[in-house]
Amino acid sequence: MDGYKAKVGQPPGTLLHTGRKLTHEPIITIIEFNQANFNEKKPASCTECVPSQQTDMVRWIHVQGVHDIELIQSIGSNFGIHPLILEDIVHTHQNPKVELLSNSIFVILRAFEYDSEDKILVSEQLSFLLGENYLLSFQESEKPLFNQIKNRISNSLGRIRKDGSDYLAYSLFDLVTDHYFVILDEISERIEVLEDEVVEVPTNETLQEIHVLKRDIITLRRSIWPIRDISSRLLREGTSLIKETTQMYLRDLNDHVIQVNDLLETYRETLTEIMDIYLSSVSNRLNEVMKVLTVISTIFIPLTLIASIYGMNFRFMPELDIPWSYPLLLITMGFLGTTLAIYFRRKRWI
Amino acid sequence: MDGYKAKVGQPPGTLLHTGRKLTHEPIITIIEFNQANFNEKKPASCTECVPSQQTDMVRWIHVQGVHDIELIQSIGSNFGIHPLILEDIVHTHQNPKVELLSNSIFVILRAFEYDSEDKILVSEQLSFLLGENYLLSFQESEKPLFNQIKNRISNSLGRIRKDGSDYLAYSLFDLVTDHYFVILDEISERIEVLEDEVVEVPTNETLQEIHVLKRDIITLRRSIWPIRDISSRLLREGTSLIKETTQMYLRDLNDHVIQVNDLLETYRETLTEIMDIYLSSVSNRLNEVMKVLTVISTIFIPLTLIASIYGMNFRFMPELDIPWSYPLLLITMGFLGTTLAIYFRRKRWI
Amino acid sequence: MDGYKAKVGQPPGTLLHTGRKLTHEPIITIIEFNQANFNEKKPASCTECVPSQQTDMVRWIHVQGVHDIELIQSIGSNFGIHPLILEDIVHTHQNPKVELLSNSIFVILRAFEYDSEDKILVSEQLSFLLGENYLLSFQESEKPLFNQIKNRISNSLGRIRKDGSDYLAYSLFDLVTDHYFVILDEISERIEVLEDEVVEVPTNETLQEIHVLKRDIITLRRSIWPIRDISSRLLREGTSLIKETTQMYLRDLNDHVIQVNDLLETYRETLTEIMDIYLSSVSNRLNEVMKVLTVISTIFIPLTLIASIYGMNFRFMPELDIPWSYPLLLITMGFLGTTLAIYFRRKRWI
Amino acid sequence: MDGYKAKVGQPPGTLLHTGRKLTHEPIITIIEFNQANFNEKKPASCTECVPSQQTDMVRWIHVQGVHDIELIQSIGSNFGIHPLILEDIVHTHQNPKVELLSNSIFVILRAFEYDSEDKILVSEQLSFLLGENYLLSFQESEKPLFNQIKNRISNSLGRIRKDGSDYLAYSLFDLVTDHYFVILDEISERIEVLEDEVVEVPTNETLQEIHVLKRDIITLRRSIWPIRDISSRLLREGTSLIKETTQMYLRDLNDHVIQVNDLLETYRETLTEIMDIYLSSVSNRLNEVMKVLTVISTIFIPLTLIASIYGMNFRFMPELDIPWSYPLLLITMGFLGTTLAIYFRRKRWI
Amino acid sequence: MDGYKAKVGQPPGTLLHTGRKLTHEPIITIIEFNQANFNEKKPASCTECVPSQQTDMVRWIHVQGVHDIELIQSIGSNFGIHPLILEDIVHTHQNPKVELLSNSIFVILRAFEYDSEDKILVSEQLSFLLGENYLLSFQESEKPLFNQIKNRISNSLGRIRKDGSDYLAYSLFDLVTDHYFVILDEISERIEVLEDEVVEVPTNETLQEIHVLKRDIITLRRSIWPIRDISSRLLREGTSLIKETTQMYLRDLNDHVIQVNDLLETYRETLTEIMDIYLSSVSNRLNEVMKVLTVISTIFIPLTLIASIYGMNFRFMPELDIPWSYPLLLITMGFLGTTLAIYFRRKRWI
Repeated sequence: MDGYKAKVGQPPGTLLHTGRKLTHEPIITIIEFNQANFNEKKPASCTECVPSQQTDMVRWIHVQGVHDIELIQSIGSNFGIHPLILEDIVHTHQNPKVELLSNSIFVILRAFEYDSEDKILVSEQLSFLLGENYLLSFQESEKPLFNQIKNRISNSLGRIRKDGSDYLAYSLFDLVTDHYFVILDEISERIEVLEDEVVEVPTNETLQEIHVLKRDIITLRRSIWPIRDISSRLLREGTSLIKETTQMYLRDLNDHVIQVNDLLETYRETLTEIMDIYLSSVSNRLNEVMKVLTVISTIFIPLTLIASIYGMNFRFMPELDIPWSYPLLLITMGFLGTTLAIYFRRKRWI
Repeated sequence: MDGYKAKVGQPPGTLLHTGRKLTHEPIITIIEFNQANFNEKKPASCTECVPSQQTDMVRWIHVQGVHDIELIQSIGSNFGIHPLILEDIVHTHQNPKVELLSNSIFVILRAFEYDSEDKILVSEQLSFLLGENYLLSFQESEKPLFNQIKNRISNSLGRIRKDGSDYLAYSLFDLVTDHYFVILDEISERIEVLEDEVVEVPTNETLQEIHVLKRDIITLRRSIWPIRDISSRLLREGTSLIKETTQMYLRDLNDHVIQVNDLLETYRETLTEIMDIYLSSVSNRLNEVMKVLTVISTIFIPLTLIASIYGMNFRFMPELDIPWSYPLLLITMGFLGTTLAIYFRRKRWI
Repeated sequence: MDGYKAKVGQPPGTLLHTGRKLTHEPIITIIEFNQANFNEKKPASCTECVPSQQTDMVRWIHVQGVHDIELIQSIGSNFGIHPLILEDIVHTHQNPKVELLSNSIFVILRAFEYDSEDKILVSEQLSFLLGENYLLSFQESEKPLFNQIKNRISNSLGRIRKDGSDYLAYSLFDLVTDHYFVILDEISERIEVLEDEVVEVPTNETLQEIHVLKRDIITLRRSIWPIRDISSRLLREGTSLIKETTQMYLRDLNDHVIQVNDLLETYRETLTEIMDIYLSSVSNRLNEVMKVLTVISTIFIPLTLIASIYGMNFRFMPELDIPWSYPLLLITMGFLGTTLAIYFRRKRWI
Repeated sequence: MDGYKAKVGQPPGTLLHTGRKLTHEPIITIIEFNQANFNEKKPASCTECVPSQQTDMVRWIHVQGVHDIELIQSIGSNFGIHPLILEDIVHTHQNPKVELLSNSIFVILRAFEYDSEDKILVSEQLSFLLGENYLLSFQESEKPLFNQIKNRISNSLGRIRKDGSDYLAYSLFDLVTDHYFVILDEISERIEVLEDEVVEVPTNETLQEIHVLKRDIITLRRSIWPIRDISSRLLREGTSLIKETTQMYLRDLNDHVIQVNDLLETYRETLTEIMDIYLSSVSNRLNEVMKVLTVISTIFIPLTLIASIYGMNFRFMPELDIPWSYPLLLITMGFLGTTLAIYFRRKRWI
Repeated sequence: MDGYKAKVGQPPGTLLHTGRKLTHEPIITIIEFNQANFNEKKPASCTECVPSQQTDMVRWIHVQGVHDIELIQSIGSNFGIHPLILEDIVHTHQNPKVELLSNSIFVILRAFEYDSEDKILVSEQLSFLLGENYLLSFQESEKPLFNQIKNRISNSLGRIRKDGSDYLAYSLFDLVTDHYFVILDEISERIEVLEDEVVEVPTNETLQEIHVLKRDIITLRRSIWPIRDISSRLLREGTSLIKETTQMYLRDLNDHVIQVNDLLETYRETLTEIMDIYLSSVSNRLNEVMKVLTVISTIFIPLTLIASIYGMNFRFMPELDIPWSYPLLLITMGFLGTTLAIYFRRKRWI
């Protein structure tokens, strides 16, 4: 949300990229296909980013990098996109949402990934504009998120070449959702490690890890929860853009999203509980420590008093002159100490 | 959710078994019955897994083991099942749900059982496809879950032979739900044990047990909660597949599921409370320990000081030469100690 | 929920009593009345348990004891009751609910009572079947729950003789609800005692009592909450069985149930809070104990060191030979101790 | 809720006053007005408590004291009030509610006040019966709650003389609601005091005060929350009794009630938080105390050991005879103590 | 909410300013524009505050300072505003709300700002009355909140001059909403600082800061949550005052408000969690402190006992006369101490 101050008071529809500062050159990929044909181009500029002339072909324009305001604006004017929609594409801190426009559907999703080194959750905004025979898709980074879909198109795997732009859009949404399960896998594994750790050796690092996972889950939930509305709205207010054959797939997608949400909720509850156990463990440990201290003090402090008493320098202390009083005292002290130790063992303090 | 990475980017409807790795040979049971006749087969392969020709007979095909992708696929093509439905049968981490298809109803449930040795909650996904005069049912393991129903059919107990496939499906659902009550019984007993333990001798094992039960309840709730929707949707959008006589039974099933949910909620609240009491008990115990330490220290440390003072080697310490000063001092010390002990008893510290 | 294992897999509608094992002989009371006449019978068997022939008379059959399966079954066949309804009467762990049948209304409630000796909450299931000119009512125990209603009928108090079976049913429901207020009174009094106790002398018994009350409230809420739905459904879907004059009374009943629920919620919140205060009190007490320990240690341990130093046996310790060094040292020690004591008093530790 | 046991089993509509025992003589005030005329009477008995003959006049009968059952009953029969409504007036532990009767509207509210001496929240039930050209209002105590309205009528301030009984009723409701803001003011001030106290000097009294405020808020919320429904139901199902000009005022009233609820919720959250800070403060203080104890013990106990060693009476302890060993030991001890003190200061323990 | 007592019992619609006492002279700004023309006036009194005569011009009257009752009243009578609306403008503690009047729309919002010095959240109420070709806006303070909008009008930036009063109102709402994001930025930064602090050096100031932020979020949520209803109601019940071109912008505004609410919720959850970690950290630290104390006591107290024993003055203590017993004892003591130290290191206590 950096740079929000700059945006305050600007007329709505003013394009100002507000996300992470990105510097890479945007990559444009134009794929055009129908059941028989397929071609792919990666033009340097976007002069060709126009609606396809052939109505029986699906044109998919994928843009990697939304920080190039001019590029977005030129695509916007070619396809006649409302300035507020362009603003949403460029301001990459939107909540996922769907907007049903007069002859197109605009969808915002968020893709997540665990950075393989630092185990930090990174995300980027994905925007989709689905038209009759075209699909525009925008992502922030250069990561080749949708290569598998590209392969399925070029190799004509599954139904993707047979169906229209709506099924293509669904395939992209499905891929994004599939990635959520990979994230959940990762979280689930880390929770299992925590569950063991928290009982055996709870440290400050355990605490940190619980905190990090909880924050990740809060972030994920905020981005995944609204997707539920997206698919159900697409089904309910289903414009003619969503063909009937695709609706079954959207319902399936909806089920997946609900499942992801349920799992997130379950993990959140489990973490809350692990936190409780962590706190109980710490309390228990404190108890153990205090018991040791108390046992040692209770046994040795009274004995020290006795020894101190016979260390006093009074002239008239008749016990001091009796030959067997020293060994007797030692025995008494030993007996006292042992008795107390037994007593504490009985109370299960040691 | 193992193996999810493999699934990412596959065309939807691709069958990939994602649950626990199972190796047993799938068991196929075909039961065909009407009021008068009954026959049961256990074919090795599924060439006979086709819809029945006789419309007055109910054909129930039960498959134990869904990891044999080819088997599932062949049944799928025989009965004309949509690839996404087959995917749901094979991916055994679905949430319970109902799907009303054009001429059949697809239901996913989850069966639970406490492993008799480790007291671990194990579950498996059950899928049902209910058609006009057939019922397909799928489970993951080899466990003979539905033997009691089979007996009721073969012995013609109750209404099961008189009614159609919808009552058969209901009977299976009802059996699954009955098992939930057995699980709840088990949980209820373990909670009662915990309730005693937590006040008398709270240990780390108590904490562990609370945690395990809570996690089980979270898991159960996630799987049982959606069943409520299933029965109410079946009643509300009731297709012609659910006959009127069966609806009363479905309503009864719904009541049971609501009751299970209510009990789960109650148990969850009770456990939260037991956790609170556990924490309070630990705090109380710490308090007790600290009181002992404080009493001992407060009584003996000052006495030790007095003894140390008369152990000093100053040449001019007139008390040291007085004959009765030693017994007087001992009496004074005894008096001091006793007074403090009485004081602490009054304060109820000992 | 004992004996649930036995029920698993039985055909639905199989009558198996699942509640507490009861052995008393069931008591059957048949009361027949209209504005002019009244008669009461207590037959040993239930051959007379049939619908009344006179349509202008209300026949109320009350059964105390539902563990006699045969009795229930014979009443069931006399009145043509669906097996699932009979099952609900006999399985005495149902949630309160209402079922609108074709020509009768089936209602389950739960009556509560504090056992006068052990202060344990005991409950029993009540089932009602309201027909055109009859009312069947079933309870588990022998307790004379409805004697007051019987008296009102025999003495023709209030409207009860003037109105039909619906007003009679309402009167029974109202009596059950009135008892809830008595329970709430009891809980309210015990909470007040707790509120004093928790601040003055919080003990383990306080903790236990909080726990017991909370569990009671959870139990009560689970049984009383659904009653709200019962009365509102009776009003909303009001069949011809509920006359218009009775509807005002049902609305009043609904208000009472809502009030009971609100009070339960209030008590639950108050108990949660009392628990918080208990925990804070324990923490505060620990603090007090530790302050005493710290004050004693901080004052006496340094003084003991000084005394120990002058108890050392070095040959050359010039202070030891000075006559006034002993009293000077005592004064210094007294001064040091007093200063520390004053310091701690200033810090409000003692 | 005292005396509830007496009510159990009584026919509904039996009048039994169940609130605080009140002994004062009920005060009856009859005010009759239209735009031109105004007269007020305070009759000793209620023979004149009948509907007004003149349809263009509004008759407001206000009763202070509902424990006189006969009085209430005579008013009830004069105005033809249903026995259940009379019961609600007399049982002064009702939740706020509205009841739309055939030709009148019955409303129950609750007035709150902080007792000026003990700062205890006291409340009383207010009942209103609004008819075409009359308004009956009942309160428990003798407090002159509605004097300001009386003055506005007699001095013809605002619209009150121009409008009918509905605006009069609204004015009374509005006054009750205004008082809630005064209560909120009081609570808000006490919370501010607590917010300072809890960080500076948290005591057991702070805890008590948090508890008292929380309980007050729970009580208030229970009584104020339902008022929201009252005004919205009056607006929605608005009978002819509520004129259109008054509806705008009712909407305004509704806004106020929502605002009161929001503030109550905010205060409750703030108190929960103050409780958390209280607990943290106590923990922090314990930490401070323990650090002092640990520092003192860690510095002085080892030094005492050293002193004790040289206090031993072994014959052959060569150090004892060396002249400079005593001062050297003192220096070493001082050095050791200082080093530890510096170490602890570095760790910010002192 | 100061001065609420004064308001109790006043006829509704009585204007009494209840907010902070303000003394500045109210500033009135009258801006009139259409696509071609623009003029701005700042009159001292409000004789010109009347609806514009030219229907093709938009007249925007902005008042900074609502404590001048007479001014508000004169505007009210010029524009024919209902007394209750005027009351809402003047009582500056309203919740945000929208009111659809016969030919105008009344909206209350709340603007927030972090005081740049004390980091205290300050807010003021904004009221808007949108008519066919006019917009009245009121704010409490003199702060130039809407200067950016004024500039956009005078410089004809964006659509603002082309559209009517509804787009102007939207622009003002949008500016208020944009400021929320700035506030969220600030909160987000402070949370990040807290997240580091709480693990490294949790102090009482950390606690205070958590508390302050939580309270701010509670306050913000209470004021921002209702705005969601405002925009959705404007869209749903959209009177003719909201043109279709503006509706897209209102939907966008709604998305922003939802996003703000989501972020607030996320921050609140994160703070709750930080609080948990704070508490855990404090517990952990206490544990560390207690371990040090226990280790020191356990090592040195027994050694002191041994030394004290050999400091006793018994005549017959044979060990004392053996030459090597002193060094042997020292070695034994060293060995004992080292063993214990190693033991505690193994247990990870030191």
